[in-house]
Amino acid sequence: SVSQCTMCTVWLSAAKLLKASGLSPVVLEARDRVGGRTFTARNKETKWVDLGGAYIGPTQNRIFRLAREYGIKTYKVNEQEKQVHYVKGKSYPFKGSFPPMWNPIVLLDFNNLWRTMDEMGTEIPREAPWRAPHAEEWDKMTMQELIDKVCWTRTVRSFVRLFVNVNVTSEPHEVSALWFLWYVKQCGGTMRIFSTTNGGQERKFQGGSSQISECMARELGDRVKLQSPVYRIDQTGDTVVVETLDKQTYTAKYVIVAVPPSLNLKMHFNPELPSLRNQLIHRVPMGSVIKCMVYYRENFWRKKGFCGSMVIEEEGSPIDLTLDDTKPDGTVPCIMGFILARKCRKLSELTREERLRRICEIYSRVLGSDEALHPVHYEEKNWCEEEYSGGCYTAYFPPGILTQYGKVLREPVGRLYFAGTETATEWSGYMEGAVEAGERAAREVMCAMGKIPRTQIWQTEPQCVDVPAFPFVTTFWERNLPSVGGLLKLMGVSTFLSAAAAVGLVACKKGLLPRS
Amino acid sequence: SVSQCTMCTVWLSAAKLLKASGLSPVVLEARDRVGGRTFTARNKETKWVDLGGAYIGPTQNRIFRLAREYGIKTYKVNEQEKQVHYVKGKSYPFKGSFPPMWNPIVLLDFNNLWRTMDEMGTEIPREAPWRAPHAEEWDKMTMQELIDKVCWTRTVRSFVRLFVNVNVTSEPHEVSALWFLWYVKQCGGTMRIFSTTNGGQERKFQGGSSQISECMARELGDRVKLQSPVYRIDQTGDTVVVETLDKQTYTAKYVIVAVPPSLNLKMHFNPELPSLRNQLIHRVPMGSVIKCMVYYRENFWRKKGFCGSMVIEEEGSPIDLTLDDTKPDGTVPCIMGFILARKCRKLSELTREERLRRICEIYSRVLGSDEALHPVHYEEKNWCEEEYSGGCYTAYFPPGILTQYGKVLREPVGRLYFAGTETATEWSGYMEGAVEAGERAAREVMCAMGKIPRTQIWQTEPQCVDVPAFPFVTTFWERNLPSVGGLLKLMGVSTFLSAAAAVGLVACKKGLLPRS
Repeated sequence: SVSQCTMCTVWLSAAKLLKASGLSPVVLEARDRVGGRTFTARNKETKWVDLGGAYIGPTQNRIFRLAREYGIKTYKVNEQEKQVHYVKGKSYPFKGSFPPMWNPIVLLDFNNLWRTMDEMGTEIPREAPWRAPHAEEWDKMTMQELIDKVCWTRTVRSFVRLFVNVNVTSEPHEVSALWFLWYVKQCGGTMRIFSTTNGGQERKFQGGSSQISECMARELGDRVKLQSPVYRIDQTGDTVVVETLDKQTYTAKYVIVAVPPSLNLKMHFNPELPSLRNQLIHRVPMGSVIKCMVYYRENFWRKKGFCGSMVIEEEGSPIDLTLDDTKPDGTVPCIMGFILARKCRKLSELTREERLRRICEIYSRVLGSDEALHPVHYEEKNWCEEEYSGGCYTAYFPPGILTQYGKVLREPVGRLYFAGTETATEWSGYMEGAVEAGERAAREVMCAMGKIPRTQIWQTEPQCVDVPAFPFVTTFWERNLPSVGGLLKLMGVSTFLSAAAAVGLVACKKGLLPRS
Repeated sequence: SVSQCTMCTVWLSAAKLLKASGLSPVVLEARDRVGGRTFTARNKETKWVDLGGAYIGPTQNRIFRLAREYGIKTYKVNEQEKQVHYVKGKSYPFKGSFPPMWNPIVLLDFNNLWRTMDEMGTEIPREAPWRAPHAEEWDKMTMQELIDKVCWTRTVRSFVRLFVNVNVTSEPHEVSALWFLWYVKQCGGTMRIFSTTNGGQERKFQGGSSQISECMARELGDRVKLQSPVYRIDQTGDTVVVETLDKQTYTAKYVIVAVPPSLNLKMHFNPELPSLRNQLIHRVPMGSVIKCMVYYRENFWRKKGFCGSMVIEEEGSPIDLTLDDTKPDGTVPCIMGFILARKCRKLSELTREERLRRICEIYSRVLGSDEALHPVHYEEKNWCEEEYSGGCYTAYFPPGILTQYGKVLREPVGRLYFAGTETATEWSGYMEGAVEAGERAAREVMCAMGKIPRTQIWQTEPQCVDVPAFPFVTTFWERNLPSVGGLLKLMGVSTFLSAAAAVGLVACKKGLLPRS
């Protein structure tokens, strides 16, 4: 007797859990397929391709548990050979989580940035970031403002912009610093979120990520109703009445709404939502990304000693980050790349062919190979045009919103409970967060029905035995090297500041106002 | 054969114009009343009261034209006696648009602020703010960042926060600087937007502002369908098919969607919206305000020499700005006040009685009168809880959005045209903007039908004879006094900066990061 609506792993995992508890959930899916922001397409050119969410890694234990249950295997994204960092028109091969920095000032600045972000993260409660000691102060700042305060060098500022773009598909000046610091923290920190090996991009599902939802849907059988967007939720009576675009009416004791917060707006509520929730759902937009897969006859990059991971700092490049997307047996050579945030909005207006052309061109330059100019196939998915996602990967919080509205994000409204990866506290924004949220919401409903005590709603997940998480060890120097500012203080030259500005160490702010 | 949906003056003015052109528009209104964000309630205690949009003033010529046509009279908001500026726990009576500043440094800073904002405004095209020469730079900043750059004194910073709160019902750190500067500019500048006499708050409609919509609705007769929220728009065929919650289906050649951008999300579109529009509508939230009217037996403030206008700078006060709301014949003594932005979200959770108590308390302190503690009646309207407004007065643009998405704000999608005050270029956010937008959208449809040439879509409005606009004359000193920064430069003491910081002239930034 639980009904729900549109999206992916979330509700399916909720429904699965509810069914296992002897209830009779119905899943109302807006699309003609399950999977939501995961979307595995199958065709002869690619065998299969994940057009949406694909990557999983250590500490994402819930999604691994589901995969294991359904016998879905995972494999490691290729990181055997060297990665490439392309900056100022040149390629620098490297190994490790982040590209190395050689200029000693830049190195101090770079080291201090990650350390500062992770330290700030330790102050932020993952389940209630609005309660962080500096919550108000940090929420009033955009991430760009924080970057401008923390970073001394142009090199590091440029890299951290890419870091924000890649992780949350939005621009540093669009997002709250508090929210971004929380986001990185609840993924396990700057290293965990950005790494391939031992991080969020370590693995993929053999056969594609949608299989998780597909397996759950199969288990639920005809309880899953496709092409059933919910447009109305009425809880004025003793039950909840839900209407779908295909003119069906469902009655339930409880409803789990498992869509991104702003897609709550697709539904007309009776009675109206409480004022804070009514405004929250206007305030948390979805990021902007086009996922692009370029297929080649041959895995030419590996022969050149490159694994296929590229970090591309170049305004003219459509793509900021790539990963090898070749199948684990070496067939279907492919490079996956993201068009992110500002670039996504700009390049959305080009033709598919023009995007492919520009992508191949930059791959050719970064990998130093003409072979990159001759793809044999192309797949892309612009998530910004999806009405029932609104964008990808996830919602972001502009400045000021998390502290003012965050606390109602997963607060039930009558018989409505809220899931969706945005409501998670570990790997929110990822498939893992979707599962956490779906299961938690299902247990909230069970608790409301008196089937489990309140203390059982939130559950921790034991570590997946096949995918252990290794701690990221920091060195003595990483922990103790000064920041650039600290170095200057050490040198006892505080007035050195003005000189430094003069020689351009500090990126100069351009004249901004007609009068000052 | 034109159909439309939910809101106020906008579609009604569009429909009116279309009907006059021999077409047969239908107006689909979500609520059980017309008027949208204007809402005149009638009862014996108040006679009538505007719970929503109420104020009009010089340069708002379209709304005055409509009022004149329907014989709706306007009257001036009482500003005979002195206004009060309450700051640091004390009341200072004053006359004029802005409270005077006495400290010479503060005066320079205050003068420079308005001058700078208006000068930046002159760079911004009202119809395309994203084309301003510094559009990208200013859009990346929050208004708070701009304030921190321009203002030297705490006094001015505090006042400008109130100025932002009052004008756009949101916080300076929530909004893009470019957007806010545009908003003030398209209202005619800092003086026009904030003034009662000769400004946006000069007048009200005798009998209430909803009369405009009510008169138009009467004219349109049964073409106006109440309680008809649109949830589906299909333009896959030759016509547009629109479905409403009351299970009616309407077919039209063209549709004008006259709702705030983010309420476009209430509708399910087939085909889906283009990607930029699909994302825009997730990115422009509505402001936060509770409008509060406190009624008294007597007009006690006038006897004390106060007109009823209060500018209250006090974190503990629920209200930032009040105006006398007594009827023009002196009956129904009343003070209108706004609970804005952060305060609105906080005080939404109190009871109505508690809000009234706190409001009366601050009025009593500001006016120095115990009579303020004894209201005879109270009316309030929290616009944040309205599903079909999402908030009031209008939508705001967080940083980064106007430059990336602004250009699609009123770009038609197939046979859909977009109105709503948010799409206007003069007094967007006001009733005037709603009329501009509705009429423009109607003419776009007429143009699409071949009834008028493209050049006639945008029309200027002649000045209303009864309500002339007087220019705001700046004095030689206002134009030429230096800023605080300019003064310091003049004095040839650039190193004075550090000393100034030490004596606290510059509001000090608190230690923000665990390490710096």
